Amino acid sequence: MESFPVSDPSAATAAVVTALRPHIRSMKGYIPGEQRNAPDVLKLNTNENPYPPSPRVFAALREALTADRLRKYPPPLGDEFRRVAARLYGLEPECFLIGNGSDDLLTILTRAFVPPGGYLAAPMPGYLLYRTLADIQGAVFVPVPFTPDWQLPEPWPVPQAHLTFLANPNSPSGTMVAPAAIRRLAETLAPAPLVLDEAYADFADWNGLSLFHQLPNLIITRSMSKSYSLAGIRFGFAIARPELIRELVKVKDSYNCDILSQTAAVAALEDQDYFQQVRARICATRQRLAEALTRLGFQVTPSQANFVWCRRSDRPVRPIADELARRNILVRYMNYDGYDGLRISIGTEAETDRLLDALQSILAGCSS
Amino acid sequence: MESFPVSDPSAATAAVVTALRPHIRSMKGYIPGEQRNAPDVLKLNTNENPYPPSPRVFAALREALTADRLRKYPPPLGDEFRRVAARLYGLEPECFLIGNGSDDLLTILTRAFVPPGGYLAAPMPGYLLYRTLADIQGAVFVPVPFTPDWQLPEPWPVPQAHLTFLANPNSPSGTMVAPAAIRRLAETLAPAPLVLDEAYADFADWNGLSLFHQLPNLIITRSMSKSYSLAGIRFGFAIARPELIRELVKVKDSYNCDILSQTAAVAALEDQDYFQQVRARICATRQRLAEALTRLGFQVTPSQANFVWCRRSDRPVRPIADELARRNILVRYMNYDGYDGLRISIGTEAETDRLLDALQSILAGCSS
Repeated sequence: MESFPVSDPSAATAAVVTALRPHIRSMKGYIPGEQRNAPDVLKLNTNENPYPPSPRVFAALREALTADRLRKYPPPLGDEFRRVAARLYGLEPECFLIGNGSDDLLTILTRAFVPPGGYLAAPMPGYLLYRTLADIQGAVFVPVPFTPDWQLPEPWPVPQAHLTFLANPNSPSGTMVAPAAIRRLAETLAPAPLVLDEAYADFADWNGLSLFHQLPNLIITRSMSKSYSLAGIRFGFAIARPELIRELVKVKDSYNCDILSQTAAVAALEDQDYFQQVRARICATRQRLAEALTRLGFQVTPSQANFVWCRRSDRPVRPIADELARRNILVRYMNYDGYDGLRISIGTEAETDRLLDALQSILAGCSS
Repeated sequence: MESFPVSDPSAATAAVVTALRPHIRSMKGYIPGEQRNAPDVLKLNTNENPYPPSPRVFAALREALTADRLRKYPPPLGDEFRRVAARLYGLEPECFLIGNGSDDLLTILTRAFVPPGGYLAAPMPGYLLYRTLADIQGAVFVPVPFTPDWQLPEPWPVPQAHLTFLANPNSPSGTMVAPAAIRRLAETLAPAPLVLDEAYADFADWNGLSLFHQLPNLIITRSMSKSYSLAGIRFGFAIARPELIRELVKVKDSYNCDILSQTAAVAALEDQDYFQQVRARICATRQRLAEALTRLGFQVTPSQANFVWCRRSDRPVRPIADELARRNILVRYMNYDGYDGLRISIGTEAETDRLLDALQSILAGCSS
């Protein structure tokens, strides 16, 4: 090809970049929360669990460190995980699809259902990755504003969407949409699927599993990152009709979940006592944090997740986040076209004390 | 939606499946090699490494089993891996993209470069996943027949492809295309990329890294599954210009490689002495196996990978594979539109003896 300037390295490199699909070049990409890992840093910005995974996870991982497990390909469909999850949730093993984090599952669903130029819808403010998934796919992202009390507008304005994501509980608000509204939405969208992104459902009073049998187009995604303290090992799963799972398997990478992640996920799921203890502690701290933030003058949205969303009407919150970061406390400042606030993950009791002390000092300093 | 038969579960489920993109429903999906994991089974069908990973991998993994590593998100770009790989290969860290196995990288490249309806080309017989990647993307897969001696036809018939994969060494043949032909192909395709899939390059006499500086549209992918005995932990990487890596990062999942995989990959790469020992053993056994198979009447293609491709003109090979499987020895029977053969992974010396004994007995039995 005459026009390709091999002799000029920089121009040649620039030419290669032009071979990318144009919408990939023009899209922004998802920016994950900051990972600052110094010893003194208190990370309340990415909704990690402050407590360790179950002791059973460590025991299972130690036992899994054998030559044969590491050198051989892992079970492609996660047979053991499926069996354990099926028993726990009262479903067939064939209803489960394993994923390299629930982001992997959201990607698989997008590729399976959304054609380029198609429509992917989700209520907003919500998980910003949904837009990125539409961008990568060359699809149109349709953000649907929540009502002021974080419920769905009715009638739903995008009944023709190829795929609809509903994070329940939602991030950043921590709020939930009630079962009746989910049912109406699923019926409106059918036969197109409604994906209930339940990354935070383990911290809520209820979840969408009770709706699963009645709504064939409901797909539920879960994550082991938050409630099972396993963000580092990347494991999530989707729940859907076996007929659908079989098709989604074609879209996933053959070996998308490695053997150690599968081992950790199984062990974590099997220790429900530990899970319930951690869950109870986080919910108790969430209550205490919400009350304390309210006393400090924040408007705190009642949360069903492992974080709280808080705002102020008396002053901008971004400088507060910046000052916290200067003190090695990371919270997530989020801004949705001018609607902004702080999303603060639930830490341990001691971490929550440290956060509250810092906030008190910052607010006192600013007002003095 | 009136037409959606919520009252009839099976019909409703069928309706949901119709919401999938039509080409997903009609495609076949990639079938990975059989994973039969009974104790007595000799797996020579998926090119796993018969030797354990480096002792350093086990030590590093044991040390990585801390609460903080498991409960926190991993470094999204694999900073430590990039540093170690950059030192080893004499490139900048920004030239490396980490992947959840090299399949993850092939998927990312396909999504970044190939529009639906676009062209993805690769010489065949080759890695069957390339066709699946095109299928998922709704693109056209263009198989280009190798010449009878496993070289590229010239001129290359698909200069306009959006993406071209060249497995080098190739599977199932284990053969390589020479540097001059790679250079000509890359220049023909430019500015569109040529992806050199080097999953097996560590077993070859040379690799494409020496071409990297001269060919800006060359992208190299590597796997830790075979040469580093880490198929179970899923880790691969791509090497490309930093300008391109930055764009590909947008397409990958934020946290596509978990912390334990990153840890294992770093430790394995750092133990080059062990790697060279394993490599030398496998290459020696490959030589012995090829000679023995030839004596048994197979036509063996000279291999630069950790497997050999062998055929017979005197009898069909499929029954031989079936009889081996009955004796708990798995090899991969592959059939490309009538051109068929056995792809046999290189095992240990003892495993190779067991295979050869079984083959001798089978061939004797059949002819008696």
